[in-house]
Amino acid sequence: MLLKRWLVGDPLKSAQAVHERLPKTLALAVFSSNAISSVAYATEEILLMLILAGTAAIAWSIPISLAILFLIVVLTISYRQIIYEYPEGGGAYIVARTNLGELPALIAAGALMIDYVLTVAVSVAAGIAALTSAVPSLFAHREALGLVGIIFIIIMNLRGVRESGKFFAIPTYFAIGALGIMVVIGSIHALFGQGASVPPDHETAVEELTLFLILRAFAAGCSAVTGMEVISNGVKAFRRPESNNASTTMIHMSLILAALFMGITFMASHQGILPKTDETVVSQLARLTFGDGALYYALQIGTMLLLVLAANSAFAGFPHLASILARDRYMPRQMATFGDRLVFSNGIIILGVLACFLLVLFHGDTHALIPLYAVGVFISFTLSQSGMVYRWLTKKGPHWRKKLVVNGIGAVTTSIATIILAGTKFTQGAWIVFLLIAILVWMFRSIRSHYKAVSEQVALTRDHRPPLPRRNIVLVPINGVNQAVIRAVDYARSRPGEVRAVMVDVDPQATARIQIQWAQWGCGIQLTVLPCPYRSGLSAILDYVEDLLNKEPDTWVTVVIPEILPARWWHNILHNQRALMLKASLLFKDRVILTDVPFHLKR
Amino acid sequence: MLLKRWLVGDPLKSAQAVHERLPKTLALAVFSSNAISSVAYATEEILLMLILAGTAAIAWSIPISLAILFLIVVLTISYRQIIYEYPEGGGAYIVARTNLGELPALIAAGALMIDYVLTVAVSVAAGIAALTSAVPSLFAHREALGLVGIIFIIIMNLRGVRESGKFFAIPTYFAIGALGIMVVIGSIHALFGQGASVPPDHETAVEELTLFLILRAFAAGCSAVTGMEVISNGVKAFRRPESNNASTTMIHMSLILAALFMGITFMASHQGILPKTDETVVSQLARLTFGDGALYYALQIGTMLLLVLAANSAFAGFPHLASILARDRYMPRQMATFGDRLVFSNGIIILGVLACFLLVLFHGDTHALIPLYAVGVFISFTLSQSGMVYRWLTKKGPHWRKKLVVNGIGAVTTSIATIILAGTKFTQGAWIVFLLIAILVWMFRSIRSHYKAVSEQVALTRDHRPPLPRRNIVLVPINGVNQAVIRAVDYARSRPGEVRAVMVDVDPQATARIQIQWAQWGCGIQLTVLPCPYRSGLSAILDYVEDLLNKEPDTWVTVVIPEILPARWWHNILHNQRALMLKASLLFKDRVILTDVPFHLKR
Repeated sequence: MLLKRWLVGDPLKSAQAVHERLPKTLALAVFSSNAISSVAYATEEILLMLILAGTAAIAWSIPISLAILFLIVVLTISYRQIIYEYPEGGGAYIVARTNLGELPALIAAGALMIDYVLTVAVSVAAGIAALTSAVPSLFAHREALGLVGIIFIIIMNLRGVRESGKFFAIPTYFAIGALGIMVVIGSIHALFGQGASVPPDHETAVEELTLFLILRAFAAGCSAVTGMEVISNGVKAFRRPESNNASTTMIHMSLILAALFMGITFMASHQGILPKTDETVVSQLARLTFGDGALYYALQIGTMLLLVLAANSAFAGFPHLASILARDRYMPRQMATFGDRLVFSNGIIILGVLACFLLVLFHGDTHALIPLYAVGVFISFTLSQSGMVYRWLTKKGPHWRKKLVVNGIGAVTTSIATIILAGTKFTQGAWIVFLLIAILVWMFRSIRSHYKAVSEQVALTRDHRPPLPRRNIVLVPINGVNQAVIRAVDYARSRPGEVRAVMVDVDPQATARIQIQWAQWGCGIQLTVLPCPYRSGLSAILDYVEDLLNKEPDTWVTVVIPEILPARWWHNILHNQRALMLKASLLFKDRVILTDVPFHLKR
Repeated sequence: MLLKRWLVGDPLKSAQAVHERLPKTLALAVFSSNAISSVAYATEEILLMLILAGTAAIAWSIPISLAILFLIVVLTISYRQIIYEYPEGGGAYIVARTNLGELPALIAAGALMIDYVLTVAVSVAAGIAALTSAVPSLFAHREALGLVGIIFIIIMNLRGVRESGKFFAIPTYFAIGALGIMVVIGSIHALFGQGASVPPDHETAVEELTLFLILRAFAAGCSAVTGMEVISNGVKAFRRPESNNASTTMIHMSLILAALFMGITFMASHQGILPKTDETVVSQLARLTFGDGALYYALQIGTMLLLVLAANSAFAGFPHLASILARDRYMPRQMATFGDRLVFSNGIIILGVLACFLLVLFHGDTHALIPLYAVGVFISFTLSQSGMVYRWLTKKGPHWRKKLVVNGIGAVTTSIATIILAGTKFTQGAWIVFLLIAILVWMFRSIRSHYKAVSEQVALTRDHRPPLPRRNIVLVPINGVNQAVIRAVDYARSRPGEVRAVMVDVDPQATARIQIQWAQWGCGIQLTVLPCPYRSGLSAILDYVEDLLNKEPDTWVTVVIPEILPARWWHNILHNQRALMLKASLLFKDRVILTDVPFHLKR
């Protein structure tokens, strides 16, 4: 417990919750690192696809990036409308549920959940790639480093939202600054200077430059816009007026993202940078711009921190989504309960564990994870934009035509992008995402229908009457006379009623001895000795209880079991095995109630 | 349960126990397969050592085997005296405990336990080697085959002693017969015929032929005598007169063992057989003797069955030893309880699991396991022989001088062999055995001292008085009004006394609604609403209980918890998380007694 307190801090009162709201500067750090950090790998993923058609195909990176820039603009404008319309937080699940119904909402929820996990895994993997680009000797340990990174973020998040905000603001702004300087210097070089020319590593084209390949490159680059929805999910975390602050933050975020992404792609294209296995494209650009000095290392460390911390935004979003789902009974109830630090501890831990699993499964390799990534995000984009379109058509309200057009463009654009992503990535792994979404939707519905069935079963209807009092026969199974047994007998008779001690006659000599002791210690309770034809004392007691239940069809039967509670948990293997068997056998009998009376050992 | 019944048969009454005694022919099969099966690998292990000094060194196998023959004779004569002196079963543990004291007894017990596990692992590994010699394509699967073999034996043993005896008798006698025919034909060939000469596989000497190497070969060959003690442990399993029957069976066993071991070693030496990786020495001899026909395959299958079934004798010995130790409080009590089939189920399962672990750890390779083997057995030989020497010296009795000489020779011989085994194998792995024996002895003593401490703590001494009756306050924590809650309240008031329902005010609206429902359904029980400044309802209830305990220093506090008992176990993740936390927090509070009132769901 002390370790927990030290790691996650002291518990907070409910009234403190409102103070946990984030000012814009901190909110930008917490919510935008996800989107902005994508610049560290998006350009590289585009190049990795194009290079399949030879170095000449690299030129296509500029038009592809312009298409993605268009996506960024469309998403920014249309998500601002969601932010104003849903000041309580308008994630794709909420928007789809209020406008489109249950199934689309659950599909959106499933898609988002999968992408939260992937965001953590991809971001941490890319962050470690930034580190190993600068320190190649760490390349072999990238899996272990990734795990350490995720565990670090889990602990930070269990400490609560605002402290995380503070903790993450400095490195986020530092990284944005460093990347910004690189892009500015690089662009000046490119426009006015010669620009160092790097000889191409390999030029052989593996594939034809087909439309399909270009679409695949576009799909890979779409990882740049992942995370843009995070602000709209978390409007409630902003200070008042929430929607205005969130909207402004969204614009800032999009401007930074667009500038860095376009700058990096332009530089890479101009310098003829090609992707390498052991060094990232951004690292190569930084080396060209800053040389091998302190500035280069600063930028790599900054990028790494930005990426590792970007995973943090998923840690804000995932537990939040899980708690909304839990409140609607689509997830286990405990996901909805606040942890000590007003954050959703259960969700944080589950997300962390799943991300660790993915990281290990894909050996901490960003490129291996990318085909799974972004598909889920674009499904949720499409569903929330379509939901808004439906909303304006039915609800109308002021300026509804203008708003309809904006979200209409959003819906069409994102659905085209979704089709491209799904089509080009399907066989590379996106099918897993579709399968998982289907499984999640099935799971959500099963959980809800289970809870519904339970609440029907426990509901008090007009046919129910308050129960009439019933008798209660208390049995104390004993196998000797000692303090633990006497304590149980003492407890059993503490409330008046019929109490019987029962013992099984396994060894006649021992039975006779116990009967004599009982006369002195038995508190006047009657001792019943059961015969035991089979060696199993357990079945003798079970038979007796069964008999009692049949003879007395309207009483409770309480079985009070004396238990040794050892001072050290591993001593349990030396005790209570019989009690355990007895309890397991009686658990499913109606009208039988089990009560342990523990006797606390001191050593 | 049905599966269990089908696998292990119906339970037996205590009175049937005496009928489980074994006639001599079945006893020979059950108890001697361990010793006799050693002939399948003992010769090979001797050759594997000698070959290090080149093919010429192979000639030393004959004198080494004669030394082992001498061991067999000495052990047979001296163990017969133990059988007569301890008709209740005279394992090394019993003999050492009654004559030498606690520490030697526990060392013997630890050594025997380790060797039981090794017997299973080595025998099964060698059995699979017999199979893969005949069917080389199975060589790659020897680990998996070994695991299947062990699991098969576990199930057979859970069915009970006599059925195992019947089941094992036919293959045991079949294997002894097949090996016997091979030895007879082989010996006739060797004495009167030419004897096919096999060209040596490799002749380069890796080591000098030193005394140390010869002693190592002797130590490896000592695996031939392992298992000779099994009969003396299990005298009680024989029909009356137990000692006479056991003694006769022991002589039969030794004769068969000696004849087969000497015959195989003689044949191998005469034919110039060298050990191979993928074919056993016995398989090579069988091929030479019988050709590649049906007889060869029959012998290999027989050897395999003998070996796999030899592991069975450990399954008779290990649980028996564990139950004796458990009765003396050196092992957890549950090891002493009879299972359904009058066998010691717990011990059988533990032995099986440990043997599987060893088999996997050493990749199912007999040669890798051999350095660990036999050391433990020889330690227990030495301790039981020394114990007998001490017994004759102190107890005397008829013919004690003659008996002293017999066991004296036994003690000296086995202690010399033990020193040779320990000295030559120590660095190859025998140190693990010594370490494990030390750990086991420490464990035995810890368990006993723990049980002793517990019985002191629960003992009723002269200072104790029967307790005076105490009040009992019953709390029912609720968070709503439904059938499960009402059931718990109904139970709580089933015995007169003070009952209070408590709920935590997390949401004022919900609280007000519940209070209204309570008026109708609360069975007249008072409902206390606890304030909840922190979000944790749990800590509010804990504080309340703590308060009550302080205010009422001499009452019981019973906490009756309404619990949902789902129809399917995996539904548990959807329920009772709060109840679980509450119970975990209250478990260690003195005077607090927890009672679950389960509400059984139907779906």
